[in-house]
Parts: sequence; structure tokens; C-alpha cells
Amino acid sequence: MQYKISDKFVSLKPSAIREIFKSLGTPGSISFAAGNPNPDSFPVKEMKKIADDIFENEPVTALQYGITEGYTPLRKLVSERLKRVYDIGTPDDDLIIVTGGQQGIELTCKVMCNEGDTVLCENPSFIGALNSFRSLGAKLVGVPLGPEGIDLEALEDALRANPNTKFLYTIPTFQNPAGITTTLETRKAVLKLAEKYDILILEDNPYGDLRFTGQDVPTYKSMDAEGRVIYCGSFSKVLSAGMRIGFLCADKNLISKIVVAKQVEDVHTNVLFQMICAKYIEQYDLEEHISGIRELYRHKAGLMLSALDRYMPKEIGYTRPEGGIFLWCSLPESLSLDEFVRRAGEKNVFVVPGTAFSADPEEESHSFRLNYSMPSDDEIDRGIKILADIAAEMLAGR
Amino acid sequence: MQYKISDKFVSLKPSAIREIFKSLGTPGSISFAAGNPNPDSFPVKEMKKIADDIFENEPVTALQYGITEGYTPLRKLVSERLKRVYDIGTPDDDLIIVTGGQQGIELTCKVMCNEGDTVLCENPSFIGALNSFRSLGAKLVGVPLGPEGIDLEALEDALRANPNTKFLYTIPTFQNPAGITTTLETRKAVLKLAEKYDILILEDNPYGDLRFTGQDVPTYKSMDAEGRVIYCGSFSKVLSAGMRIGFLCADKNLISKIVVAKQVEDVHTNVLFQMICAKYIEQYDLEEHISGIRELYRHKAGLMLSALDRYMPKEIGYTRPEGGIFLWCSLPESLSLDEFVRRAGEKNVFVVPGTAFSADPEEESHSFRLNYSMPSDDEIDRGIKILADIAAEMLAGR
Repeated sequence: MQYKISDKFVSLKPSAIREIFKSLGTPGSISFAAGNPNPDSFPVKEMKKIADDIFENEPVTALQYGITEGYTPLRKLVSERLKRVYDIGTPDDDLIIVTGGQQGIELTCKVMCNEGDTVLCENPSFIGALNSFRSLGAKLVGVPLGPEGIDLEALEDALRANPNTKFLYTIPTFQNPAGITTTLETRKAVLKLAEKYDILILEDNPYGDLRFTGQDVPTYKSMDAEGRVIYCGSFSKVLSAGMRIGFLCADKNLISKIVVAKQVEDVHTNVLFQMICAKYIEQYDLEEHISGIRELYRHKAGLMLSALDRYMPKEIGYTRPEGGIFLWCSLPESLSLDEFVRRAGEKNVFVVPGTAFSADPEEESHSFRLNYSMPSDDEIDRGIKILADIAAEMLAGR
Repeated sequence: MQYKISDKFVSLKPSAIREIFKSLGTPGSISFAAGNPNPDSFPVKEMKKIADDIFENEPVTALQYGITEGYTPLRKLVSERLKRVYDIGTPDDDLIIVTGGQQGIELTCKVMCNEGDTVLCENPSFIGALNSFRSLGAKLVGVPLGPEGIDLEALEDALRANPNTKFLYTIPTFQNPAGITTTLETRKAVLKLAEKYDILILEDNPYGDLRFTGQDVPTYKSMDAEGRVIYCGSFSKVLSAGMRIGFLCADKNLISKIVVAKQVEDVHTNVLFQMICAKYIEQYDLEEHISGIRELYRHKAGLMLSALDRYMPKEIGYTRPEGGIFLWCSLPESLSLDEFVRRAGEKNVFVVPGTAFSADPEEESHSFRLNYSMPSDDEIDRGIKILADIAAEMLAGR
């Protein structure tokens, strides 16, 4: 039969990155395309022991239906940690466990936006979030991202031009894809604009724990006196990505609506992994574990930056992230990004072209994203050399 | 601040059942309100061993990001079992793993329906599905359910009256809440109407494996020659509810859209439990395990039916399910359901009032749902006696 797909899905494409991800794994290939945490960041032995204990002592709690809000001990532990580490959480706030940060982002849009309402985002931004806004019929307006964060003038222009804006979606710390951290000054100015135009801020912070140099910048949520910020966090980059555990912290009036939205989406997040997370935090030292991951990524980012410094023609720009797992390279406008990505692929080196992160899919890009959490030390050096050689050849008109 | 919630969520309430579920657990209370599988149906020892092996031998596969379509070995095993047990699956079909049957239902509506499109459902029906259709702005039209399945005349009336109908949502086997199984004759007639009015059928079959008496009736999907049926299944009632593993089998053109919808909702379903499911099917005898669950529910349903036969005034009607976990009781119209449910609650016996399952929340109901999978043998006998006494008192005007 002929299927009549809904207007919102008839044209929505799968994420280019997840499609690249599927085609990887050719022997000898070097991938800088992933968004995955390094598997060394998974505390396998500890999780094995915890899982074993749960199956021995509390199997029914793990295997039976749970409540939509999440496993109560985990909600309590996450709230405590948010307060301790980020000064997040007021008596008006509540916290819900979601099936990965992705669900937190999607549920926020679902609960806030009617079709045609505007969502503002940094441009470039995380493709998974952009596609979830598109899938709900929101109008997506990208605001350029500069070295200090979102462009404030362009943000105010966008707010003026789109009075039906519901929220700004932002990854202020170690942004995906650009690796940029929004400065404190910019954050304060963005909060003021949010108040002035009465919009919410969806603060997505999956990488915030992964700072390996420089000083932490306060989160939007910690500076939020009015319940204007919805904070989205995740265990994907610090315990396991495959377990799909994230959380939202926001005013309880918003969380109560998000609970209803989650209930009709997947009832609740898998209980065993919520228990594993909770017991890991209770029985082990999560902060020490995270500092080990920071050390690993400090090393990997350092390797990639020195390879870029050493090999890359000076015409190619790149960000110097202070944390997270990505950096962002820009070709001069005279070079074709398509050709660069194609030639890299022919040499079995994979990067994600900037077009994949654009709020406007028709927009031209000269940038690409590099991931340093997954490749081996040797792959980083060899891969960057190959990319640098291609850039040099293209600059020389070969 | 004042929140401007989306039109679809501003009035949507949490599921009454899940709210009841939260308030249970008073010592001495008897709950017939759950929709939970009996914990004895969880193969705890086997899962413990499998989880242990996975953490020992393949931890990275379990803990790293997976692909949206699902863990490939599980997709293959589920497809094979669907073919073997239900004769489901053609070369044009594909299968996706989802985060519980609930997500399969929600994704189907998301991909098929524009706001205002009609979804038809049996009335009464599964509240979780009804709320997910509401949350997506679909217009919900209930069609009365009789002892042989959906009322065919009313179904055709509804199809004529709603030319923008996208699909019929049906639980043809051991229906939730009514416990009714649609006859083969009715199924064939429904399929013909679906063809005539060119709509899809979303066949939700979470209880299909749990027949304890009578003969299996062919699924809609097995009789579907045109790719008109989307089949939704689940491991919640046969391995574990808390692991949140379900699946959709449908034409590959539909599944490819559902993959995109799932990607923006939660990226993928937790991998560890997909691996546990797959390895359970490979290493143990799932059919034998299921036949143990059938035996348990045959026993429980038998107890409940004989208690009803023994104690309940003849004015109260009830269905005699051949499988699944629910039966459906109806008071005479002269008795108030509200009063009955309240008086039962005062005696610490909990049932779910029929209003919770109605396509039209304003509709009056005189029925309530009883679950027999969770209560103990003794609770079944005592609880039904209490309910029968209340009914008798109310009939006597006390």
C-alpha cells in the first residue's frame, strides 16, 4: 500500500553521523567521526559486581515496572551531586530520570512547543537535538556561535524576529560540535535576554564533567533565580552511553508535565541501570573516576592539538577545547568541504562535515568536527597527518 | 515565571493507573489494580549468569552506544521467532527494537499522524496508548468492544465519519482492560474494512504468548498481504517489564521512518538488556519458560474466576479470559462505580475503574478491571470476597 507519512517525518532524514557510524569499522580506517566516550571510561569491573549483587539481592526491583519519575535513590543521589558540584537545585526544583539526554531534550520540546513555535539554537549545534525539534514541528532558528559563545546581537535579533520563541537550546560547556565554552559574561547576558523576552533556556550539559584544563564556568541553571532554566545531564560520558541514563532538573511544575510526556513515551527508564548508577555513586568514588576520564581526554586532546599544530597548514583554523571530546576545524572558504571530506574518506580517515550540524540544512559550511576520545594515540597522529596533507594538497591546487 | 505549556500537554493527566500504582504498598492491602507480570515470571538466575558473562566478555558492546535499529542478533532472533510462532514476517518487512511496547505505539502515531488526524481504538482500551495518541494531537475515536471483538458496524460508521483516519489501534488478544480475544471472523472483517477505507492497523500484542486455554487465533499481521499491519510486541510480560524491550515489525518503508523517529527520541534502546534477551533466547528454552508462565496464570485466573463464581452476586458480569492478565467486571447500571471503587479502597482492595480506559474521558462507566497476575492466591480469594460483599451491600441498598 501507499503510506501517508506525517508531514513532520516525510522529509526528516536519519542523522548523518549515525549513518557514518554504521558504515565505520573498515579495518585500518581512522575515525574522528564518533561522538562516543572512550570505552576505558566504563567502570566495567565495578558495574559487574554491582549487577551481580542486584540480581542476587533485589532482582524484582530491577526487573519489574518502575515509576516514571525514576528510581528514587538515584534521583536523590543525582540531586545531591548537582547541588554539591554545580550548585544546581532550589526547593522549587525537581528531577526526572530520562532515557539518555536525548530524551530529555525531546521531552522538553514536546511539552513546551506547539507546532510552528520557535526554538533558538547555537549554529552549529548537536544534530540529535536539532532533529528532535524538527520532528516535533518546531521552527528552528540558528544563531551564530563565536569564540565566547552565542552571538548576543544575533540572539536578540532572533528573539525580536520570533516572538513565538519558547526556548533557547544551548550546550554552553565544551559545545558539540565546536568544543567552545560560553564565557561567564556571555552567559549572564543570555540570561538577561531570556528574561527580557520571557523565554526558557534548555541547558544541555553532557560534557560538563570533562574539563581537563582551565576553570569551571557557572552553569546557567546555578544562576537561575526564576525557574527559567531546564538543565539536562547524562551519565553517557562518565559511566556508560549504552545504558541510556540521563536526567532533567527544572522547576517542579515543568517536571510534572515532563513526567506525563515520558509516561506516554516509554513508561520509565530501564530500572537495572538506574540501580547500577545509584549503587556506583554510593559504593565507589564517582569524582575520582571522572578525574581519570579527564586525564585520559587531556592526553588525547593534547595529542590531537600538537599534531594539528605540527602538521596542519596555517590556513586551517581549529578550536582549542578545555574539555569534552570534540574540536572544530575550519578550512579557508576557497577550499571545498565536500572535496576535503571525500578525499579524507578515500584515505580511510573519517570526519563529520559541518553541514551535519547546521540549523539550516541548505547552509554552506567550511568546517568539520574532530573527535579525540575514541581514536588511539597512534591513530590521532597518523590521521591528523593525512588530513593535513590533503589540506596542503588542496591549498596547492592539486 | 509563568510557563506556557504546549496545547497538547497543558491538560494531559498522568495515567490514573500509574498514579494508583504509586500509592499502593499499604501493608495488608490487596491490589487487583496492577498491570504487572508476576515476578516469578522473571528468569532471574539465568539473567544473572548471562549478565555476568556479558560484563566479563563483551562489556564494551553492552556499555557503548548502539545502533538505533537495535542489537542485530536480537533483531534476527525476534524475527525468527515471530515467523516460527506466529507466521509473521514477509521479505518486505523489517523489525526495530524499541524501549518497551509503549514506545512502539507512540512512534507509530508520531510517524503516521498529523495533528487532528484520527486514530480509532477499541473502547475501552489501554490507557497508555490512548494518552500517547492524545499527546501527539491525534483525534481519538473509540469504537465499542463486544464479546467477539470490536463492533464492526460501529467501526464502519467511525471510518465513514472520519475520512482522515490513519490507523486502528487494537489489542486483539486478551485485550487490556477487557480480557477479550477478537474472533477470527471479526479479524477478517476488520482487515477488509481497513482495506476498504485504506487505513493501517496497529496490532498491539503484549499478551499473545500468555494463552492458558483455548486455541490461538491468527494475528492480523499473519493475514496481512499488503503491509497494512504494524505489529507491536514486547518482552515485558515474558522476561522482564523493567528492562523496557519491545519491538515493531512492519513494512520496511514504515520501519525506516520509525528508525528516524526513535533516533531523535532516545537514540537506541539500552544495549545490555537487548543482549540479555538475545542470549536468553540462544542459551535457554524461551518456549518452555513461557509455558511455565501460562501455567501460573492459568492457576491464578482459575482462582479468580472460581472466587467470582462463588461469591459475586449474579447481577455482576465478568469476562472469562483465555489468557493474559486481566478480566473485566461490570456492575448493573443502577450501581455507582465511583462508590464501589471508593468502598473497595476503604477496605484496602484496589481495582481500576473503567473510566480510566475510556476513549472519551467524560464517558460514564460501570465496569472495572481486575488483575490476577500479581496478587497471591490467598489475596485473590479474600479480595474477591470483599468486592462481592460490597456489591451485595450496594445491591441491597446499604
